[in-house]
Amino acid sequence: MPVHSTEIEVRFRDIDALGHVNNAVYATYTEQARTAYFRDVLDTDLSQASTVLASTSFDFRRSVELTDETVTVLSGVDEIGRSSISMTYEIRVGGDGDDLAAEAEATIVYLDPETDEPAPVPEPMRETLMSYHDL
Amino acid sequence: MPVHSTEIEVRFRDIDALGHVNNAVYATYTEQARTAYFRDVLDTDLSQASTVLASTSFDFRRSVELTDETVTVLSGVDEIGRSSISMTYEIRVGGDGDDLAAEAEATIVYLDPETDEPAPVPEPMRETLMSYHDL
Amino acid sequence: MPVHSTEIEVRFRDIDALGHVNNAVYATYTEQARTAYFRDVLDTDLSQASTVLASTSFDFRRSVELTDETVTVLSGVDEIGRSSISMTYEIRVGGDGDDLAAEAEATIVYLDPETDEPAPVPEPMRETLMSYHDL
Amino acid sequence: MPVHSTEIEVRFRDIDALGHVNNAVYATYTEQARTAYFRDVLDTDLSQASTVLASTSFDFRRSVELTDETVTVLSGVDEIGRSSISMTYEIRVGGDGDDLAAEAEATIVYLDPETDEPAPVPEPMRETLMSYHDL
Repeated sequence: MPVHSTEIEVRFRDIDALGHVNNAVYATYTEQARTAYFRDVLDTDLSQASTVLASTSFDFRRSVELTDETVTVLSGVDEIGRSSISMTYEIRVGGDGDDLAAEAEATIVYLDPETDEPAPVPEPMRETLMSYHDL
Repeated sequence: MPVHSTEIEVRFRDIDALGHVNNAVYATYTEQARTAYFRDVLDTDLSQASTVLASTSFDFRRSVELTDETVTVLSGVDEIGRSSISMTYEIRVGGDGDDLAAEAEATIVYLDPETDEPAPVPEPMRETLMSYHDL
Repeated sequence: MPVHSTEIEVRFRDIDALGHVNNAVYATYTEQARTAYFRDVLDTDLSQASTVLASTSFDFRRSVELTDETVTVLSGVDEIGRSSISMTYEIRVGGDGDDLAAEAEATIVYLDPETDEPAPVPEPMRETLMSYHDL
Repeated sequence: MPVHSTEIEVRFRDIDALGHVNNAVYATYTEQARTAYFRDVLDTDLSQASTVLASTSFDFRRSVELTDETVTVLSGVDEIGRSSISMTYEIRVGGDGDDLAAEAEATIVYLDPETDEPAPVPEPMRETLMSYHDL
Protein backbone atom coordinates (compact mmCIF):
# COMPACT_ATOMS: atom_id res chain seq x y z
CA MET A 1 0.00 0.00 0.00
CA PRO A 2 1.46 3.37 -1.03
CA VAL A 3 2.44 5.46 1.99
CA HIS A 4 5.03 7.99 0.84
CA SER A 5 3.36 11.23 -0.24
CA THR A 6 4.57 13.82 -2.76
CA GLU A 7 2.65 16.91 -3.77
CA ILE A 8 3.19 18.10 -7.34
CA GLU A 9 1.96 21.34 -8.87
CA VAL A 10 0.01 20.93 -12.10
CA ARG A 11 1.65 23.06 -14.79
CA PHE A 12 -0.10 24.78 -17.67
CA ARG A 13 2.32 22.84 -19.92
CA ASP A 14 1.01 19.52 -18.49
CA ILE A 15 -2.35 20.14 -20.17
CA ASP A 16 -2.88 18.98 -23.74
CA ALA A 17 -5.22 19.92 -26.57
CA LEU A 18 -8.05 18.03 -24.88
CA GLY A 19 -7.86 20.34 -21.86
CA HIS A 20 -6.64 17.68 -19.40
CA VAL A 21 -3.26 16.61 -18.06
CA ASN A 22 -1.72 14.56 -20.89
CA ASN A 23 -1.29 10.82 -20.27
CA ALA A 24 2.51 11.00 -20.64
CA VAL A 25 2.64 13.49 -17.78
CA TYR A 26 1.36 10.83 -15.35
CA ALA A 27 4.67 9.05 -16.00
CA THR A 28 6.43 12.29 -15.12
CA TYR A 29 4.36 12.66 -11.94
CA THR A 30 5.18 9.11 -10.79
CA GLU A 31 8.83 9.65 -11.75
CA GLN A 32 8.85 12.80 -9.65
CA ALA A 33 7.31 10.87 -6.76
CA ARG A 34 9.91 8.13 -7.25
CA THR A 35 12.69 10.74 -7.15
CA ALA A 36 11.30 12.03 -3.84
CA TYR A 37 10.83 8.48 -2.52
CA PHE A 38 14.44 7.53 -3.31
CA ARG A 39 15.64 10.76 -1.68
CA ASP A 40 13.45 10.50 1.42
CA VAL A 41 13.41 6.75 2.06
CA LEU A 42 16.71 5.58 0.56
CA ASP A 43 18.68 8.82 0.87
CA THR A 44 19.67 8.30 -2.77
CA ASP A 45 19.62 10.50 -5.86
CA LEU A 46 17.50 8.60 -8.42
CA SER A 47 19.68 9.82 -11.29
CA GLN A 48 22.73 8.37 -9.53
CA ALA A 49 21.02 5.15 -8.42
CA SER A 50 22.12 2.01 -10.20
CA THR A 51 18.62 1.09 -11.36
CA VAL A 52 16.67 0.87 -14.58
CA LEU A 53 12.94 1.11 -15.21
CA ALA A 54 11.71 -2.21 -16.61
CA SER A 55 7.99 -1.55 -16.96
CA THR A 56 5.20 0.86 -16.09
CA SER A 57 1.41 0.77 -16.23
CA PHE A 58 -1.27 3.38 -15.70
CA ASP A 59 -5.01 3.11 -15.06
CA PHE A 60 -6.73 6.40 -15.63
CA ARG A 61 -9.82 7.02 -13.48
CA ARG A 62 -10.63 10.66 -13.96
CA SER A 63 -8.95 13.53 -15.74
CA VAL A 64 -6.82 16.13 -13.96
CA GLU A 65 -7.41 19.77 -14.83
CA LEU A 66 -5.29 22.90 -14.40
CA THR A 67 -7.84 24.07 -11.84
CA ASP A 68 -6.94 21.07 -9.65
CA GLU A 69 -3.68 23.02 -9.09
CA THR A 70 -1.87 20.11 -7.42
CA VAL A 71 -1.84 16.32 -7.43
CA THR A 72 -0.74 14.16 -4.54
CA VAL A 73 1.18 11.03 -5.50
CA LEU A 74 1.24 8.25 -2.92
CA SER A 75 4.11 5.82 -3.53
CA GLY A 76 5.02 2.49 -2.07
CA VAL A 77 7.00 -0.67 -2.62
CA ASP A 78 4.81 -3.75 -2.50
CA GLU A 79 7.21 -6.47 -3.57
CA ILE A 80 10.97 -6.96 -3.66
CA GLY A 81 12.28 -9.73 -5.88
CA ARG A 82 15.85 -10.90 -6.30
CA SER A 83 16.82 -7.89 -8.40
CA SER A 84 13.49 -6.15 -8.97
CA ILE A 85 11.44 -3.71 -6.92
CA SER A 86 7.71 -3.29 -7.61
CA MET A 87 6.28 0.13 -6.83
CA THR A 88 2.64 1.18 -6.81
CA TYR A 89 1.30 4.70 -7.02
CA GLU A 90 -1.95 6.51 -6.47
CA ILE A 91 -2.36 9.89 -8.11
CA ARG A 92 -4.96 11.86 -6.19
CA VAL A 93 -6.49 15.29 -6.59
CA GLY A 94 -8.56 17.52 -4.36
CA GLY A 95 -7.79 19.46 -1.24
CA ASP A 96 -8.00 16.40 0.95
CA GLY A 97 -6.33 14.22 -1.66
CA ASP A 98 -9.12 11.67 -1.58
CA ASP A 99 -10.11 11.71 -5.23
CA LEU A 100 -8.32 9.01 -7.21
CA ALA A 101 -7.21 10.21 -10.66
CA ALA A 102 -5.03 7.22 -11.55
CA GLU A 103 -3.31 4.13 -10.24
CA ALA A 104 0.10 3.18 -11.54
CA GLU A 105 2.80 0.58 -11.19
CA ALA A 106 6.50 0.57 -11.98
CA THR A 107 9.05 -2.21 -11.86
CA ILE A 108 12.60 -1.14 -11.20
CA VAL A 109 15.56 -3.44 -11.70
CA TYR A 110 18.71 -3.07 -9.66
CA LEU A 111 21.90 -3.11 -11.74
CA ASP A 112 25.44 -4.01 -10.81
CA PRO A 113 27.12 -0.56 -10.91
CA GLU A 114 30.12 -2.03 -12.71
CA THR A 115 28.57 -4.32 -15.31
CA ASP A 116 25.14 -2.65 -15.69
CA GLU A 117 23.66 -6.15 -15.55
CA PRO A 118 20.74 -7.04 -13.21
CA ALA A 119 22.09 -7.82 -9.76
CA PRO A 120 20.59 -8.68 -6.37
CA VAL A 121 19.03 -5.75 -4.54
CA PRO A 122 21.67 -4.87 -1.91
CA GLU A 123 20.71 -6.07 1.57
CA PRO A 124 20.78 -2.60 3.20
CA MET A 125 18.40 -1.27 0.53
CA ARG A 126 16.16 -4.32 0.89
CA GLU A 127 16.03 -3.95 4.65
CA THR A 128 15.31 -0.24 4.52
CA LEU A 129 12.43 -0.81 2.07
CA MET A 130 10.99 -3.75 4.03
CA SER A 131 11.22 -1.85 7.28
CA TYR A 132 9.66 1.29 5.79
CA HIS A 133 6.70 -0.70 4.46
CA ASP A 134 6.40 -3.38 7.17
CA LEU A 135 6.91 -6.07 4.51
CA MET B 1 -0.23 -7.90 -34.35
CA PRO B 2 0.80 -4.28 -34.97
CA VAL B 3 0.85 -3.43 -38.66
CA HIS B 4 0.54 0.34 -38.98
CA SER B 5 3.95 2.01 -39.04
CA THR B 6 4.93 5.52 -37.93
CA GLU B 7 8.44 6.91 -37.96
CA ILE B 8 9.25 9.46 -35.25
CA GLU B 9 12.39 11.56 -34.95
CA VAL B 10 14.12 11.38 -31.58
CA ARG B 11 14.49 14.90 -30.20
CA PHE B 12 17.31 16.16 -28.00
CA ARG B 13 14.55 17.17 -25.54
CA ASP B 14 13.38 13.51 -25.36
CA ILE B 15 16.63 12.56 -23.59
CA ASP B 16 16.84 12.84 -19.82
CA ALA B 17 19.64 13.18 -17.29
CA LEU B 18 20.48 9.49 -17.69
CA GLY B 19 21.30 10.02 -21.38
CA HIS B 20 18.39 7.96 -22.73
CA VAL B 21 14.90 8.73 -24.00
CA ASN B 22 12.85 9.35 -20.85
CA ASN B 23 10.17 6.79 -20.02
CA ALA B 24 7.34 9.35 -20.27
CA VAL B 25 8.35 10.03 -23.88
CA TYR B 26 7.40 6.46 -24.86
CA ALA B 27 3.82 7.48 -24.02
CA THR B 28 4.29 10.46 -26.35
CA TYR B 29 5.68 8.21 -29.10
CA THR B 30 2.73 5.80 -28.87
CA GLU B 31 0.32 8.75 -28.71
CA GLN B 32 1.91 10.13 -31.85
CA ALA B 33 1.56 6.70 -33.51
CA ARG B 34 -2.09 6.57 -32.35
CA THR B 35 -2.69 10.01 -33.88
CA ALA B 36 -1.29 8.76 -37.20
CA TYR B 37 -3.26 5.50 -36.93
CA PHE B 38 -6.55 7.34 -36.36
CA ARG B 39 -5.77 9.66 -39.27
CA ASP B 40 -4.65 6.93 -41.69
CA VAL B 41 -6.98 4.07 -40.78
CA LEU B 42 -10.07 5.83 -39.42
CA ASP B 43 -9.69 9.15 -41.26
CA THR B 44 -10.26 10.82 -37.88
CA ASP B 45 -8.46 13.54 -35.92
CA LEU B 46 -7.61 11.94 -32.55
CA SER B 47 -8.17 15.23 -30.73
CA GLN B 48 -11.68 15.36 -32.20
CA ALA B 49 -12.45 11.67 -31.70
CA SER B 50 -14.95 10.87 -28.99
CA THR B 51 -12.60 8.57 -27.09
CA VAL B 52 -10.75 8.51 -23.80
CA LEU B 53 -7.59 6.68 -22.79
CA ALA B 54 -8.43 4.18 -20.05
CA SER B 55 -5.07 2.53 -19.47
CA THR B 56 -1.54 2.17 -20.82
CA SER B 57 1.40 -0.12 -20.12
CA PHE B 58 5.01 -0.16 -21.25
CA ASP B 59 7.68 -2.86 -21.20
CA PHE B 60 11.10 -1.39 -21.74
CA ARG B 61 13.59 -3.69 -23.50
CA ARG B 62 16.50 -1.47 -24.36
CA SER B 63 17.18 2.25 -24.12
CA VAL B 64 16.82 4.64 -27.05
CA GLU B 65 19.61 7.16 -27.60
CA LEU B 66 19.79 10.43 -29.52
CA THR B 67 22.13 8.69 -31.94
CA ASP B 68 19.31 6.30 -32.89
CA GLU B 69 17.86 9.42 -34.63
CA THR B 70 14.44 7.83 -35.25
CA VAL B 71 12.13 5.22 -33.78
CA THR B 72 9.56 3.25 -35.69
CA VAL B 73 6.28 2.61 -33.86
CA LEU B 74 4.19 -0.29 -35.13
CA SER B 75 0.56 0.01 -34.02
CA GLY B 76 -2.38 -2.35 -34.17
CA VAL B 77 -5.77 -3.11 -32.71
CA ASP B 78 -5.93 -6.61 -31.29
CA GLU B 79 -9.32 -6.63 -29.61
CA ILE B 80 -12.54 -4.68 -29.84
CA GLY B 81 -14.94 -4.90 -26.91
CA ARG B 82 -18.37 -3.40 -26.58
CA SER B 83 -17.04 0.10 -25.99
CA SER B 84 -13.29 -0.48 -25.70
CA ILE B 85 -10.49 -0.84 -28.23
CA SER B 86 -7.21 -2.53 -27.25
CA MET B 87 -4.14 -1.34 -29.10
CA THR B 88 -0.64 -2.82 -29.02
CA TYR B 89 2.57 -1.09 -30.02
CA GLU B 90 6.14 -2.03 -30.78
CA ILE B 91 8.74 0.70 -30.55
CA ARG B 92 11.70 -0.25 -32.70
CA VAL B 93 15.05 1.36 -33.46
CA GLY B 94 17.71 0.78 -36.08
CA GLY B 95 17.82 1.40 -39.78
CA ASP B 96 15.86 -1.72 -40.54
CA GLY B 97 13.59 -1.22 -37.55
CA ASP B 98 14.23 -4.71 -36.25
CA ASP B 99 15.52 -3.85 -32.79
CA LEU B 100 12.76 -3.85 -30.19
CA ALA B 101 13.09 -1.01 -27.67
CA ALA B 102 9.70 -1.40 -26.00
CA GLU B 103 6.29 -3.02 -26.21
CA ALA B 104 3.22 -1.09 -25.13
CA GLU B 105 -0.52 -1.41 -24.83
CA ALA B 106 -3.32 1.13 -24.62
CA THR B 107 -7.02 0.70 -24.00
CA ILE B 108 -9.25 3.33 -25.52
CA VAL B 109 -12.89 3.73 -24.57
CA TYR B 110 -15.43 5.08 -27.01
CA LEU B 111 -17.67 7.79 -25.55
CA ASP B 112 -21.11 8.94 -26.54
CA PRO B 113 -20.34 12.36 -28.04
CA GLU B 114 -23.34 13.87 -26.24
CA THR B 115 -23.12 12.38 -22.76
CA ASP B 116 -19.38 11.62 -22.60
CA GLU B 117 -20.35 8.24 -21.14
CA PRO B 118 -18.92 4.95 -22.51
CA ALA B 119 -20.93 3.85 -25.53
CA PRO B 120 -20.74 1.02 -28.07
CA VAL B 121 -18.01 1.40 -30.67
CA PRO B 122 -19.92 2.56 -33.76
CA GLU B 123 -20.39 -0.21 -36.33
CA PRO B 124 -18.57 1.57 -39.18
CA MET B 125 -15.53 2.13 -36.95
CA ARG B 126 -15.66 -1.49 -35.76
CA GLU B 127 -15.87 -2.78 -39.30
CA THR B 128 -13.04 -0.60 -40.53
CA LEU B 129 -10.78 -1.77 -37.69
CA MET B 130 -11.69 -5.46 -38.11
CA SER B 131 -11.18 -5.27 -41.83
CA TYR B 132 -7.85 -3.45 -41.51
CA HIS B 133 -6.55 -6.09 -39.09
CA ASP B 134 -8.30 -9.18 -40.48
CA LEU B 135 -9.96 -9.71 -37.07
CA MET C 1 10.65 45.48 -11.34
CA PRO C 2 9.29 41.98 -10.81
CA VAL C 3 7.38 41.69 -7.55
CA HIS C 4 5.01 38.73 -7.85
CA SER C 5 6.66 35.53 -6.63
CA THR C 6 5.96 31.94 -7.68
CA GLU C 7 7.85 28.92 -6.41
CA ILE C 8 8.19 26.02 -8.85
CA GLU C 9 9.54 22.56 -8.11
CA VAL C 10 12.29 21.38 -10.46
CA ARG C 11 11.25 18.06 -11.98
CA PHE C 12 13.56 15.24 -13.00
CA ARG C 13 11.96 15.57 -16.47
CA ASP C 14 13.11 19.22 -16.66
CA ILE C 15 16.73 18.09 -16.83
CA ASP C 16 18.27 17.28 -20.20
CA ALA C 17 21.20 15.19 -21.39
CA LEU C 18 23.62 17.89 -20.24
CA GLY C 19 22.46 17.46 -16.64
CA HIS C 20 20.83 20.90 -16.32
CA VAL C 21 17.32 22.26 -16.68
CA ASN C 22 16.73 22.44 -20.44
CA ASN C 23 16.44 25.92 -21.97
CA ALA C 24 12.87 25.30 -23.19
CA VAL C 25 11.81 24.64 -19.59
CA TYR C 26 12.59 28.25 -18.65
CA ALA C 27 9.72 29.18 -20.98
CA THR C 28 7.55 26.73 -19.05
CA TYR C 29 8.68 28.21 -15.71
CA THR C 30 7.84 31.76 -16.82
CA GLU C 31 4.54 30.55 -18.30
CA GLN C 32 3.74 28.94 -14.97
CA ALA C 33 4.61 32.19 -13.20
CA ARG C 34 2.44 34.08 -15.69
CA THR C 35 -0.45 31.72 -15.00
CA ALA C 36 -0.08 32.41 -11.27
CA TYR C 37 0.27 36.17 -11.89
CA PHE C 38 -2.92 36.30 -13.96
CA ARG C 39 -4.75 34.29 -11.29
CA ASP C 40 -3.43 36.28 -8.31
CA VAL C 41 -3.28 39.81 -9.72
CA LEU C 42 -5.97 39.80 -12.42
CA ASP C 43 -8.19 37.04 -11.01
CA THR C 44 -8.14 35.54 -14.52
CA ASP C 45 -7.45 32.06 -15.90
CA LEU C 46 -4.61 32.54 -18.40
CA SER C 47 -6.03 29.85 -20.69
CA GLN C 48 -9.32 31.78 -20.79
CA ALA C 49 -7.74 35.22 -21.10
CA SER C 50 -8.10 36.89 -24.45
CA THR C 51 -4.35 37.34 -24.96
CA VAL C 52 -1.60 36.01 -27.20
CA LEU C 53 2.14 35.77 -26.59
CA ALA C 54 3.93 37.99 -29.12
CA SER C 55 7.56 37.50 -28.07
CA THR C 56 9.84 36.11 -25.40
CA SER C 57 13.52 36.39 -24.56
CA PHE C 58 15.77 34.64 -22.08
CA ASP C 59 19.22 35.49 -20.70
CA PHE C 60 20.77 32.48 -19.02
CA ARG C 61 23.13 33.31 -16.15
CA ARG C 62 23.77 29.99 -14.44
CA SER C 63 22.40 26.50 -14.86
CA VAL C 64 19.69 25.04 -12.63
CA GLU C 65 20.22 21.52 -11.31
CA LEU C 66 17.84 18.91 -9.92
CA THR C 67 19.51 19.42 -6.55
CA ASP C 68 18.31 23.03 -6.54
CA GLU C 69 14.88 21.42 -5.94
CA THR C 70 12.91 24.65 -6.56
CA VAL C 71 13.18 27.86 -8.50
CA THR C 72 11.52 31.12 -7.57
CA VAL C 73 10.17 33.16 -10.46
CA LEU C 74 9.62 36.86 -9.81
CA SER C 75 7.21 38.40 -12.31
CA GLY C 76 6.20 41.94 -13.07
CA VAL C 77 4.67 44.21 -15.68
CA ASP C 78 6.98 47.07 -16.59
CA GLU C 79 5.14 48.67 -19.49
CA ILE C 80 1.61 48.76 -20.81
CA GLY C 81 1.13 49.89 -24.40
CA ARG C 82 -2.10 50.40 -26.27
CA SER C 83 -2.72 46.66 -26.69
CA SER C 84 0.50 45.15 -25.38
CA ILE C 85 1.76 44.27 -21.91
CA SER C 86 5.50 43.81 -21.28
CA MET C 87 6.40 41.41 -18.51
CA THR C 88 9.83 40.80 -16.99
CA TYR C 89 10.90 37.77 -14.98
CA GLU C 90 13.76 36.77 -12.75
CA ILE C 91 14.34 33.05 -12.25
CA ARG C 92 16.19 32.55 -8.99
CA VAL C 93 17.51 29.52 -7.15
CA GLY C 94 18.75 28.93 -3.63
CA GLY C 95 17.06 28.84 -0.27
CA ASP C 96 16.95 32.59 -0.01
CA GLY C 97 16.15 32.99 -3.69
CA ASP C 98 19.01 35.40 -4.23
CA ASP C 99 20.92 33.56 -6.91
CA LEU C 100 19.90 34.70 -10.39
CA ALA C 101 19.64 31.82 -12.90
CA ALA C 102 18.01 33.76 -15.73
CA GLU C 103 16.24 36.94 -16.70
CA ALA C 104 13.37 36.84 -19.16
CA GLU C 105 10.86 39.05 -20.91
CA ALA C 106 7.52 38.38 -22.54
CA THR C 107 5.24 40.63 -24.54
CA ILE C 108 1.57 39.79 -24.39
CA VAL C 109 -0.97 41.28 -26.77
CA TYR C 110 -4.57 41.77 -25.75
CA LEU C 111 -7.09 40.51 -28.30
CA ASP C 112 -10.68 41.49 -28.93
CA PRO C 113 -12.53 38.38 -27.67
CA GLU C 114 -14.83 38.47 -30.70
CA THR C 115 -12.48 39.20 -33.58
CA ASP C 116 -9.20 37.83 -32.13
CA GLU C 117 -7.57 41.01 -33.44
CA PRO C 118 -5.30 43.18 -31.21
CA ALA C 119 -7.44 45.52 -29.16
CA PRO C 120 -6.83 48.12 -26.44
CA VAL C 121 -6.02 46.67 -23.02
CA PRO C 122 -9.31 47.09 -21.12
CA GLU C 123 -9.22 49.98 -18.65
CA PRO C 124 -9.97 47.86 -15.54
CA MET C 125 -7.08 45.52 -16.40
CA ARG C 126 -4.77 48.47 -17.10
CA GLU C 127 -5.68 50.11 -13.82
CA THR C 128 -5.22 46.91 -11.82
CA LEU C 129 -1.78 46.36 -13.34
CA MET C 130 -0.67 49.98 -12.88
CA SER C 131 -1.88 50.02 -9.31
CA TYR C 132 -0.24 46.68 -8.49
CA HIS C 133 3.10 47.92 -9.83
CA ASP C 134 2.87 51.62 -8.91
CA LEU C 135 3.29 52.52 -12.60
CA MET D 1 20.53 34.56 -43.39
CA PRO D 2 19.41 31.07 -42.30
CA VAL D 3 20.27 28.44 -44.89
CA HIS D 4 20.39 25.08 -43.12
CA SER D 5 16.99 23.39 -43.21
CA THR D 6 15.50 20.89 -40.75
CA GLU D 7 12.02 19.43 -40.99
CA ILE D 8 10.34 18.58 -37.67
CA GLU D 9 7.07 16.71 -37.18
CA VAL D 10 4.54 18.48 -34.97
CA ARG D 11 3.55 16.15 -32.15
CA PHE D 12 0.17 15.98 -30.44
CA ARG D 13 2.10 16.62 -27.20
CA ASP D 14 3.45 19.90 -28.60
CA ILE D 15 -0.05 21.38 -28.52
CA ASP D 16 -1.27 23.07 -25.34
CA ALA D 17 -4.65 23.86 -23.85
CA LEU D 18 -5.08 26.75 -26.29
CA GLY D 19 -4.94 24.34 -29.23
CA HIS D 20 -1.63 25.63 -30.63
CA VAL D 21 2.01 24.57 -30.36
CA ASN D 22 3.09 25.81 -26.93
CA ASN D 23 5.64 28.64 -26.85
CA ALA D 24 8.24 26.53 -25.01
CA VAL D 25 8.16 24.02 -27.87
CA TYR D 26 9.61 26.64 -30.25
CA ALA D 27 12.75 26.45 -28.10
CA THR D 28 12.70 22.68 -28.59
CA TYR D 29 12.24 23.08 -32.36
CA THR D 30 15.20 25.48 -32.62
CA GLU D 31 17.25 23.21 -30.35
CA GLN D 32 16.45 20.30 -32.63
CA ALA D 33 17.48 22.39 -35.64
CA ARG D 34 20.69 23.38 -33.80
CA THR D 35 21.42 19.71 -33.11
CA ALA D 36 21.03 18.96 -36.82
CA TYR D 37 23.11 22.02 -37.78
CA PHE D 38 25.99 20.98 -35.49
CA ARG D 39 25.81 17.45 -36.88
CA ASP D 40 25.58 18.46 -40.55
CA VAL D 41 27.80 21.54 -40.69
CA LEU D 42 30.28 20.95 -37.85
CA ASP D 43 30.15 17.15 -37.74
CA THR D 44 29.69 17.51 -33.96
CA ASP D 45 27.24 16.05 -31.45
CA LEU D 46 25.64 19.09 -29.74
CA SER D 47 25.45 17.25 -26.41
CA GLN D 48 29.22 16.66 -26.62
CA ALA D 49 30.10 20.12 -27.91
CA SER D 50 31.84 22.39 -25.46
CA THR D 51 29.27 25.16 -25.70
CA VAL D 52 26.62 26.78 -23.54
CA LEU D 53 23.46 28.63 -24.51
CA ALA D 54 23.74 32.24 -23.34
CA SER D 55 20.47 33.70 -24.59
CA THR D 56 17.47 33.06 -26.81
CA SER D 57 14.63 35.15 -28.20
CA PHE D 58 11.46 34.32 -30.08
CA ASP D 59 9.08 36.47 -32.15
CA PHE D 60 5.81 34.68 -32.72
CA ARG D 61 4.06 35.56 -35.97
CA ARG D 62 1.30 32.98 -36.32
CA SER D 63 0.32 29.88 -34.38
CA VAL D 64 1.26 26.36 -35.45
CA GLU D 65 -1.47 23.72 -35.36
CA LEU D 66 -1.38 19.93 -35.26
CA THR D 67 -2.87 19.98 -38.76
CA ASP D 68 0.26 21.75 -40.01
CA GLU D 69 1.89 18.31 -39.45
CA THR D 70 5.47 19.60 -39.88
CA VAL D 71 7.48 22.76 -39.41
CA THR D 72 10.62 23.64 -41.31
CA VAL D 73 13.33 25.37 -39.29
CA LEU D 74 15.90 27.34 -41.26
CA SER D 75 19.09 27.94 -39.27
CA GLY D 76 22.13 30.07 -39.80
CA VAL D 77 25.06 31.73 -38.12
CA ASP D 78 25.09 35.48 -38.72
CA GLU D 79 27.92 36.60 -36.45
CA ILE D 80 30.93 35.05 -34.79
CA GLY D 81 32.49 36.95 -31.89
CA ARG D 82 35.59 36.07 -29.92
CA SER D 83 33.87 33.27 -27.99
CA SER D 84 30.25 33.66 -29.06
CA ILE D 85 28.25 32.46 -32.05
CA SER D 86 24.96 34.16 -32.98
CA MET D 87 22.41 31.96 -34.68
CA THR D 88 19.14 33.01 -36.29
CA TYR D 89 16.18 30.79 -37.08
CA GLU D 90 13.02 30.94 -39.11
CA ILE D 91 10.25 28.52 -38.21
CA ARG D 92 8.03 28.02 -41.23
CA VAL D 93 4.91 26.02 -41.90
CA GLY D 94 3.07 24.96 -45.04
CA GLY D 95 3.86 22.53 -47.79
CA ASP D 96 6.21 24.93 -49.49
CA GLY D 97 7.56 26.20 -46.19
CA ASP D 98 6.88 29.81 -47.08
CA ASP D 99 4.65 30.77 -44.17
CA LEU D 100 6.64 32.30 -41.31
CA ALA D 101 5.44 31.14 -37.88
CA ALA D 102 8.28 32.60 -35.83
CA GLU D 103 11.73 34.10 -35.95
CA ALA D 104 14.26 33.27 -33.27
CA GLU D 105 17.82 33.97 -32.19
CA ALA D 106 20.25 32.12 -29.97
CA THR D 107 23.68 33.08 -28.71
CA ILE D 108 26.04 30.21 -28.01
CA VAL D 109 29.26 30.63 -26.07
CA TYR D 110 32.23 28.39 -26.68
CA LEU D 111 33.80 26.99 -23.51
CA ASP D 112 37.28 25.75 -22.81
CA PRO D 113 36.66 22.00 -22.48
CA GLU D 114 38.95 21.83 -19.43
CA THR D 115 37.94 24.91 -17.43
CA ASP D 116 34.36 25.36 -18.69
CA GLU D 117 35.19 29.07 -18.98
CA PRO D 118 34.41 31.08 -22.16
CA ALA D 119 37.23 30.61 -24.64
CA PRO D 120 37.93 31.71 -28.23
CA VAL D 121 35.95 29.84 -30.88
CA PRO D 122 38.52 27.39 -32.31
CA GLU D 123 39.85 28.49 -35.69
CA PRO D 124 38.72 25.34 -37.59
CA MET D 125 35.16 25.81 -36.29
CA ARG D 126 35.25 29.53 -37.14
CA GLU D 127 36.49 28.82 -40.64
CA THR D 128 33.92 26.11 -41.27
CA LEU D 129 31.09 28.40 -40.16
CA MET D 130 32.37 31.41 -42.15
CA SER D 131 32.84 29.28 -45.23
CA TYR D 132 29.40 27.66 -44.91
CA HIS D 133 27.72 31.06 -44.66
CA ASP D 134 30.00 33.14 -46.91
CA LEU D 135 30.73 35.44 -43.96
